[in-house]
Amino acid sequence: MSRLTGGGSALGIRLVAGCALALLPLTAGGAASEGRLGFLPASIEAQRQAEATFLATPTPEQARRWLRRLTEEPHVAGTPGDRAVATFIRDKLREFGLDADLVPYHVLLNYPKHVSLRLVEPAIQDLSLFEDGQVRDKDSFSRDAFPAFHGYGASGSAAGQVVYVNYGTEEDYKQLEETGVDLRGKIALVRYGKVFRGLKVREAQQRGAGAVLIYSDPADDGYVQGDVYPDGPMRPPTALQRGSVQFLSLGPGDPQTPGVPSTKEAKRVPREKLEGIPRIPSLPLSYGEAEKILRALAGPNVPSGWQGGLPFAYHVGPGPAKVEMVVEMDEAVREIWDVVGKIPGSSEPDAWVILGNHHDAWTYGAVDPSSGTASFLEAARALGAAVKAGWRPRRTIVMAAWDAEEYGLVGSTEWGEDLAKELSQKAVAYLNLDSSVTGPNLSLDGIPSLRDLAIEAAGDLRDPKRGKSIAELWTAKQRKEWNGQEPIPLDRPDSPFEPHLAPLGSGSDYTVFVDHLGIPSLNFGFEGKYGVYHSTLDSLFWMEKFGDPEFLYHAEAARLLGLMAMRLAGADVVPFRYAPYAAVLARQLDELRRFAVQERRTAAAADKPPERAPLEPDFQPLLAALGEFRTAAADLDAALDALELGGGAAPTRLAQLNAALMAVERRFLIPAGIHGRPWYRHVLYAPGVTTGYASWPLPGLKLAVKEHDTAIWDGEARKVLDALEAATAALGEAKQLAH
Amino acid sequence: MSRLTGGGSALGIRLVAGCALALLPLTAGGAASEGRLGFLPASIEAQRQAEATFLATPTPEQARRWLRRLTEEPHVAGTPGDRAVATFIRDKLREFGLDADLVPYHVLLNYPKHVSLRLVEPAIQDLSLFEDGQVRDKDSFSRDAFPAFHGYGASGSAAGQVVYVNYGTEEDYKQLEETGVDLRGKIALVRYGKVFRGLKVREAQQRGAGAVLIYSDPADDGYVQGDVYPDGPMRPPTALQRGSVQFLSLGPGDPQTPGVPSTKEAKRVPREKLEGIPRIPSLPLSYGEAEKILRALAGPNVPSGWQGGLPFAYHVGPGPAKVEMVVEMDEAVREIWDVVGKIPGSSEPDAWVILGNHHDAWTYGAVDPSSGTASFLEAARALGAAVKAGWRPRRTIVMAAWDAEEYGLVGSTEWGEDLAKELSQKAVAYLNLDSSVTGPNLSLDGIPSLRDLAIEAAGDLRDPKRGKSIAELWTAKQRKEWNGQEPIPLDRPDSPFEPHLAPLGSGSDYTVFVDHLGIPSLNFGFEGKYGVYHSTLDSLFWMEKFGDPEFLYHAEAARLLGLMAMRLAGADVVPFRYAPYAAVLARQLDELRRFAVQERRTAAAADKPPERAPLEPDFQPLLAALGEFRTAAADLDAALDALELGGGAAPTRLAQLNAALMAVERRFLIPAGIHGRPWYRHVLYAPGVTTGYASWPLPGLKLAVKEHDTAIWDGEARKVLDALEAATAALGEAKQLAH
Repeated sequence: MSRLTGGGSALGIRLVAGCALALLPLTAGGAASEGRLGFLPASIEAQRQAEATFLATPTPEQARRWLRRLTEEPHVAGTPGDRAVATFIRDKLREFGLDADLVPYHVLLNYPKHVSLRLVEPAIQDLSLFEDGQVRDKDSFSRDAFPAFHGYGASGSAAGQVVYVNYGTEEDYKQLEETGVDLRGKIALVRYGKVFRGLKVREAQQRGAGAVLIYSDPADDGYVQGDVYPDGPMRPPTALQRGSVQFLSLGPGDPQTPGVPSTKEAKRVPREKLEGIPRIPSLPLSYGEAEKILRALAGPNVPSGWQGGLPFAYHVGPGPAKVEMVVEMDEAVREIWDVVGKIPGSSEPDAWVILGNHHDAWTYGAVDPSSGTASFLEAARALGAAVKAGWRPRRTIVMAAWDAEEYGLVGSTEWGEDLAKELSQKAVAYLNLDSSVTGPNLSLDGIPSLRDLAIEAAGDLRDPKRGKSIAELWTAKQRKEWNGQEPIPLDRPDSPFEPHLAPLGSGSDYTVFVDHLGIPSLNFGFEGKYGVYHSTLDSLFWMEKFGDPEFLYHAEAARLLGLMAMRLAGADVVPFRYAPYAAVLARQLDELRRFAVQERRTAAAADKPPERAPLEPDFQPLLAALGEFRTAAADLDAALDALELGGGAAPTRLAQLNAALMAVERRFLIPAGIHGRPWYRHVLYAPGVTTGYASWPLPGLKLAVKEHDTAIWDGEARKVLDALEAATAALGEAKQLAH
Repeated sequence: MSRLTGGGSALGIRLVAGCALALLPLTAGGAASEGRLGFLPASIEAQRQAEATFLATPTPEQARRWLRRLTEEPHVAGTPGDRAVATFIRDKLREFGLDADLVPYHVLLNYPKHVSLRLVEPAIQDLSLFEDGQVRDKDSFSRDAFPAFHGYGASGSAAGQVVYVNYGTEEDYKQLEETGVDLRGKIALVRYGKVFRGLKVREAQQRGAGAVLIYSDPADDGYVQGDVYPDGPMRPPTALQRGSVQFLSLGPGDPQTPGVPSTKEAKRVPREKLEGIPRIPSLPLSYGEAEKILRALAGPNVPSGWQGGLPFAYHVGPGPAKVEMVVEMDEAVREIWDVVGKIPGSSEPDAWVILGNHHDAWTYGAVDPSSGTASFLEAARALGAAVKAGWRPRRTIVMAAWDAEEYGLVGSTEWGEDLAKELSQKAVAYLNLDSSVTGPNLSLDGIPSLRDLAIEAAGDLRDPKRGKSIAELWTAKQRKEWNGQEPIPLDRPDSPFEPHLAPLGSGSDYTVFVDHLGIPSLNFGFEGKYGVYHSTLDSLFWMEKFGDPEFLYHAEAARLLGLMAMRLAGADVVPFRYAPYAAVLARQLDELRRFAVQERRTAAAADKPPERAPLEPDFQPLLAALGEFRTAAADLDAALDALELGGGAAPTRLAQLNAALMAVERRFLIPAGIHGRPWYRHVLYAPGVTTGYASWPLPGLKLAVKEHDTAIWDGEARKVLDALEAATAALGEAKQLAH
C-alpha cells in the first residue's frame, strides 16, 4: 500500500527531554555519535564497534541485485510468484544467520476473472482496462500482471449514467447531495487521492450507487506534477492504480476473521455477511480512458476544488455519459506466507524489537514494496554480519516480511492477532518499511516516544548526495512546512520550532502493532516524485531511471532501519523519551479545539442549522490530565538522562525499568476500542473514519466533535482521561525504577 | 481595469457603533428601512419619498439599451469611438437634468502600429496576435479593435530564448534566480494573475530581460475555472488580455505629469526619462499560442505552484524555444475627455459626493467598463427623476465618467490632481463603479468609516433573484471566507464574526481619491465567472448570454450607487461611523505582526541567513495609539447615534460637525507620501509595491518588515503614529460638536 507523508526532526543533535543537549559531529565514515540514547557509558564502545561493522555492510550494488530478483515477475499475494519471493526471502534470512520460517495463513483473496467496461452513451466505445507497454521498458509489455481490478472488490455488473464526485470523500458526496444529484443507480466516477480508495466505494455504496470507477487524475500524480513516464517519473495516460477497496478505517486484515488469526480452521464470517468490504463492483481507470467519460458529462460545472488536470471544464453529470461494466472475481480462501526470522537477544530474549516490510506486490512492485524488501534484506545481511563479528543484541530482533499487505495489511494483521498475547508482553517497538525509496527525502512518522531515538540514528547517517545528515535535511524540510502552516499566536509570537514525528494513520503494516496492540511504532522511507503507484510501470526500469538510479537510498534505508534496530535491541535502557509525546499531544489537542470552534463557526454561518448543535466541549479536564502527563514525562526523561550519564543500575532493576518503559504505551489501549471501531484500541491514534490513510489523533473525540454528538464525547473523553492517567502513572512507576 | 475581490457586511441590520441595533425589515417594494444613518427624525420622511421615486426608476430594459449603445464599437481612450461615447454620456446627463460638460486633458497614449511574434526555435512558426471570431457573436469578427498590445508598452524588437517565470511576481523572479537561471537577454514568459501586469514587466526589466510575453493560462481564467466561450463565460484558447503595463504601484495617471494635471501646457517629463512605464517591449498572448512556446521549453520541471492548466508538465527553460518579437507603437500626447456633471446641493453646496465610472474600453467593453457605465447612466437618470419630483440634496452630487482609465487611471487622476485643493476642502466621499456586473455576487470594498452606510443601503435592496437583501448575501459570503481563513485564537475561541470592507488597493479610479487625496471611498460591483477580461469577446453577446442576461444586476447596481449617493448627499449629519475603522485597523495590524513573525521564522529556517536581519519591531506604541483611536471612535459613534436619535442641532453647528467629520480621513494623509512612493500619501492604505492591485494596509510598515529595514520602520512608524494621533484628535473635535 502506501503511506501519507509527514514527519519532523533535529540536526546533528541529541535531543534529551525535548532539549538539544549537545551537537554531535558526524564522523568521517558516516557514523556515529558519541552518546547513545539508552546506553550506559560502559556499553557504548562495544555498540560503536558493532554498528561500524553493520554500517559498512550494505551496498547499493547488492540492493540493486535484490531488487532485480524481487521484480522479476508480478507477485500478488497467494500466487506462485508471491510464494517464490517469500521462499527467497526466507532462504536469504537463513543465509544471513537468522532463524527464519514461512508462517502461513489462510485468507480471503480475490483475483480478476473477467473485467470489462464500455461507454454506451453518447456513443459506444470500449474502454481499456490494460496498461500499454512502453518501448524502453520490457516489463511494461508483460501481461502477467492482472488487469484493472480492486483487491476485495465485489463481483457484479452495472450500467448507468455517470456522476463525477471529485475525490469521493465524505464531504464530496455530501456536497453532491446538496446540489440535488441522486446517486441511486448511478455509476460514481471519482479520482484517486485524499482518502483511502475503499472509503470512496463505501460512501458511494451507502448512497445507492451501482458501481464506482476510480481514476488517476493528472492533477494528482500525472503531468500536473511533472513529466510523465517514460520521460519522467509521473503517471502517463494509460497507467492505472490497482489497490484494495477494503473499508480500512473499520479494521484491516482478513475480512472473514476480524480480531482473530486466519488459521486454516478459523471460524469465518460468510461472504454475504461481510461489512468491511464492498458489495458493489468497482474498477480503477487510467486518465486516458477516464477522459472519454469526463468529456461526455453535462450538468453544471463542478464546484470549487473539483476540477482536475484534464484540459477542459469538468461537469458533474449525471450523464449523458453512460457506462456498462462487468466485474467477475475469482474469490477464495487462499494460503499466504509471512516470513519471520529472529536474532535472539542475550540478556532480554523475551523483549522483541520487530522490523517488518511486506513482500507481496500488485505488479512487479519495484517501489511498492520491493524497494523496501531490498533495503530490508540489506539490513538483515548487515545485522547478520555484525552478529558474525561477535555482536549479541541484548534483546531479540524479529524480522518479518509480510504477505497480502496490499489486500488489507493481511499478513501482519493475522500475525499480530495470532501472537497478540505474546506481543503484548514482549514487543518493545515495531519499525516498518514499505516502499523504502521513491526519491531522496526522508519521511519519518511514528509514536513520539521514539522521536529522539529516530533523530539520533538519522543524525548519524549522512545523506549520500547532499553532505548533511539525513536528520538535518528532514528537520529542515519539516521546519519549512511548519513555517508555512503553524498558526502564529500573537501572545507567543516566537514560540520555537520543534521537530515532531507525524502520527501514523494507516495504509501499511504498522497498523496492527500501534493501533491494535499499543506497540510504539515507526514508519519511514525516502520519497520523491512517484506517479506509477500500483501500475505495471512500477518496475526496475522506473527505479533505475528515476527513483534511485545509483541505489544509494536503498542502502541508506537499510542502514537507518538496522541502526535503529541495533540501538533499540542493544541499549541497556529502552531508549524512549516522553517529553516529545506530551508536546505532540498538546498540539493535537489544540488542533481538536480549533476544529470544535470551526464546527461552531460553520454551523453559525450555515443557511440552515445542522440537525444537532455543534459541541462546546469542556477541554479543561483533558488539558489538566495532559499537564500531569507532561510533568511526569519530563521527570522520567530527566531520571533516564541522569541514569545513563551516571551509568549503572543493578541488572534486575534494569530489567524492571525496561519492563516498566515497555508498559507505558500499552496504557493507551482501551479494551472496548474507540467508538464504533472495536478493533482500533489505541485511544490516541487511529486512521480517520473517513480518511483511511490519514491519522485522526484523539479519534474518539474527533468523531464526537465531527458528529456533534455529546454522548460520544462523554464516553470517549472518559476513555482518554483514564488512559492519560494510567500512562502518567506508568511514567511515574518507571521513574521510581530509574533512580 | 479591474479590481481585486474582497468585502464584508450584515443582514437587514443597521450597524451602529459596530453593533447590530435593530433588524429592519425590507419593505415589499425593495426599499427601504425606517432609520437612516445621518438623518435626523424630521428629515427621514422626505428622504424616504425621494428614495422611493429614485428606486422605482432604473429598469433592466433601459440598462440593456445603454449597453447596446455603449458597445457598438471599440472605444479606446483618445479615439473617435471614445469621444463619441463621452459626448453621448454628457448629452444624457444633461437630458437627465445635470449640469454636465466634457473636461479634456492632454495625455501620453500609445496605439499599436505594428506587432509581430514568431517562434524561431525549435521550428519557425508565426504566433497570432489577433483573436478569432466566434460564429454566434458578430462583434468577435470585427478588426476594429487593436490587436495584442499593452497600454504604455514600449516599442522595440527582441529575440531570445524563452524562460517561464510563473506569474512574474517578485517572489517568482527571485525563485528563478535561486535556481541559477539568468534572465539577461532572455524573453520572460509569464502568466496573468496575482499582481498587476506592469509589475511583471518591471521585475523582468530590472533583471535584464529583453522582452516580456504575458499570457492567460487556462488555470486562471480558462477551462480550469469553467466552460469557455461560447459555451461558457471563461476564456477560450484564442482570447487575449490587453491592458496597461504602467508601473502602477509607483503612481497612476499620465506618466509625463506626475502629481500635476495634464493640461495642454503642462510641463512634461521627456519620454526617455520616464521611470513609471517600461523600456522593454511586451505583448499579451492567448493560451492557444502560448502553448506552442511552453511545449517547447526544456530545463527542469517547474517549482511547486508554477504549473498551469495546459495538459503537460511545464518547464522553466531557458529554451530551446526561442522567439522574435517586434513592437512598434504610435506614441503621442492625445486629448481625452472626462465627463463631469453636477446636481447642486441646497444647504451644503460646497460639500461634494462624487460618483465615478470610466467610459474608455480596450475593446467593446461590455463588462469593462460599459456595464458600469450603463448602471451609472441609470443611476443618473433616476437621480434626475428624484430631483424632478422635488428632491433637493443637502450636498452637491458630482457624477464623473472618466477617460483613459485603462492606460493608468489617467482621466480620474488628472482631474483629481487638477482639483486637488478644491477636493481637499469639498469632497465628502467618492463612490466608484468600474465593471458593475459579471454575475450576481456583490463585491464591496472601501474605507471602513463607510461600512455602516454601505451595509444599510445594501440591506435595503433585495437581490433580484434570491429573495434576500444583497447585504445579507454579501455578509454570508464574507462570513464563509472568514470561517475558512480567520485564525482561531484558543484564548478567545468564539470571537464573533463582524463584516468588513476589504481595503482598496488599486486598479480603478478610486485610487487618486483615497490614496492621494484622503477621501473616503467605496468600490463595488456584482461578480461572477468572467474569463474574457480585456478581450474582444467582452461584448454584448457575452453579457446577454452569461453575465446578466436579464440585466437585473445592472439595474441593481444603479440602485445601490444612487441610494448610497442620496444618503451621503441628503443626510443631516455626514453618515460616517468609526468603530469599524478601529476594528479593521486592529486586524490589519495583527496581520502585520504575523508577517513580522513569519519573516523571522523564514530567516531562521533559511539555508543561508538573509543579508539584513529580520526586524523585531516594537508594536506597543502602535497598539497604544490604536487603542486611543478606538476609544475616540466609539465615543464619537455614540455621540452621533444620540444626536440622530435625539434629533437636532443648530444648523451652523451641524455644518461645523459635518466639516469636522469630513476632516477626519484627511488626517491620514502625509505630505511626503509613503517611503519611496511620494504620490501615495495615505498612511494606512496603498497598493502593494509588488502587487499593484492588492492593497498593503500600513504600506510603509509592511515595506520595512519585508525589506528588513530598521530605518524605514522608524520613519514610517512615526508617520503612522502621528497620523493616528491626529485622526484621534479629529474624532474628539467632531465629538465635541456632536453634543
